[in-house]
Amino acid sequence: MLDFWFTENHTNSYKVSWRVTKLLHSETSALQEIAVIESPDLGRALLLDNVVQTSTRFEFIYHEMIAHVPLMIHPAPKKVLIIGGGDGGVAREVIKHPTVEQIDLIEIDERVIRVCQEWMPDLSSVLSSKKVNILIQDGLQYIKKLSNHYDIVIIDCTDPSGPSLELFSKEFYQDVFDALKADGILVSQTGSPIFSPHFRQALKNLQEVFPRTRPYLTCDPTYFAGYWSFTIGSKEYGLENIINDRFSSLNTLFYTPEVHKAAFVIPRYIQNIID
Amino acid sequence: MLDFWFTENHTNSYKVSWRVTKLLHSETSALQEIAVIESPDLGRALLLDNVVQTSTRFEFIYHEMIAHVPLMIHPAPKKVLIIGGGDGGVAREVIKHPTVEQIDLIEIDERVIRVCQEWMPDLSSVLSSKKVNILIQDGLQYIKKLSNHYDIVIIDCTDPSGPSLELFSKEFYQDVFDALKADGILVSQTGSPIFSPHFRQALKNLQEVFPRTRPYLTCDPTYFAGYWSFTIGSKEYGLENIINDRFSSLNTLFYTPEVHKAAFVIPRYIQNIID
Repeated sequence: MLDFWFTENHTNSYKVSWRVTKLLHSETSALQEIAVIESPDLGRALLLDNVVQTSTRFEFIYHEMIAHVPLMIHPAPKKVLIIGGGDGGVAREVIKHPTVEQIDLIEIDERVIRVCQEWMPDLSSVLSSKKVNILIQDGLQYIKKLSNHYDIVIIDCTDPSGPSLELFSKEFYQDVFDALKADGILVSQTGSPIFSPHFRQALKNLQEVFPRTRPYLTCDPTYFAGYWSFTIGSKEYGLENIINDRFSSLNTLFYTPEVHKAAFVIPRYIQNIID
Repeated sequence: MLDFWFTENHTNSYKVSWRVTKLLHSETSALQEIAVIESPDLGRALLLDNVVQTSTRFEFIYHEMIAHVPLMIHPAPKKVLIIGGGDGGVAREVIKHPTVEQIDLIEIDERVIRVCQEWMPDLSSVLSSKKVNILIQDGLQYIKKLSNHYDIVIIDCTDPSGPSLELFSKEFYQDVFDALKADGILVSQTGSPIFSPHFRQALKNLQEVFPRTRPYLTCDPTYFAGYWSFTIGSKEYGLENIINDRFSSLNTLFYTPEVHKAAFVIPRYIQNIID
């Protein structure tokens, strides 16, 4: 039998390998290397520049937690912007909220969308919905033109390198702040609190822009061992606010209002990194 | 530079590698292979049969959570039994509770204790305390002789293979039940809910013996990605019971009463594995 493995270097001294039973797709787009593999413990996995972005077995953890936490805090989210998210998984969760009327998805690399439509239809089929408006464009440029426009902005990007680097900057967060309505909410994935050097800086940058900011944590086998973080910036609503009534629409595998509250409980050693 | 790695096979299709800067110790005892490595992302790590047991950088997560959750549920734990735990980390946490008068530590392999005393003194120094009584013996045999004796039994063992296999069986849990006082509490590490096939069976075995059982979760970079589980069996006390007053004695890096409560919030897809 072929003993064929994909290896991701999480740090210079820590790497993870998944057995590959099929290399379903591989290409170099104008922006990055895109691949789809099949692995017994992940199902199908999307790789961008040799980093696992999502996997069919565990994708619900990340997609539910990045979408439902900010949306359940907002009393009536109608217009939602997703920056990145070309696989469609975040849009699929956002559209479950009955109040949502429009989802703008700004993906910089059209090839990510096309590859996911071919190989991960459970994630990307939502992209053909009439409520979803796809723009192939740099999110950094798009956001600059808008003010007082969105209820929620979700930053579903790769870790900071190449095209994603500026998506963790104070300047970008200020542009998102301006593009949000007066009671709007931003959320971004912010990496591993332990192993990602940008976690602390991204939080500090958000704190300089938004009056209410807090990280929250999940535990996702697809990414680094230990916690994976998201960080919220809110203009008005308290982050402990949960609109429980809407939960019955969501049909989730990970998210519940109890999981929502527990995700904001930060163990001391991670709080020490933040302080 | 030497490019020297330690690799642990978590499953047949998923493995993790840590860079090794020093192989500090390596031996084959009568029962297992014992090694201590130094790695930039783990600090010093104890390996038994090529599986990371604990690391100086992250050991507090596992040791605090396996010790303080059951002890904080018990109003006045006095006599505590640790099965396994030769590195001393669990005993170091248990002894922080002022009510504790005696800790019996039953380790099957004396060499584990000696190696940790040499290379991990921050964990094992507590083993010289007058409150700690070390017995080099098989925990399976030791427990059979006792009844109505302990307030808390902590099973700090390797995953089920070799000498640990029976430490997840219904028969053993019944022996622990009998060795506990009428209001006693058992806790065991029960592996990765996703990747460890024994998680579900261990919980079912406990449910057949103890009137109150519940798993709780942590997220620990030392072990498999995703959650790591512990399971509690309690004869009397409700598992949501927390003796908050005692927390001020504990001086923890991970555990807080809020972390305690959050650890019992089980995401739906893991609840589905249990049901």
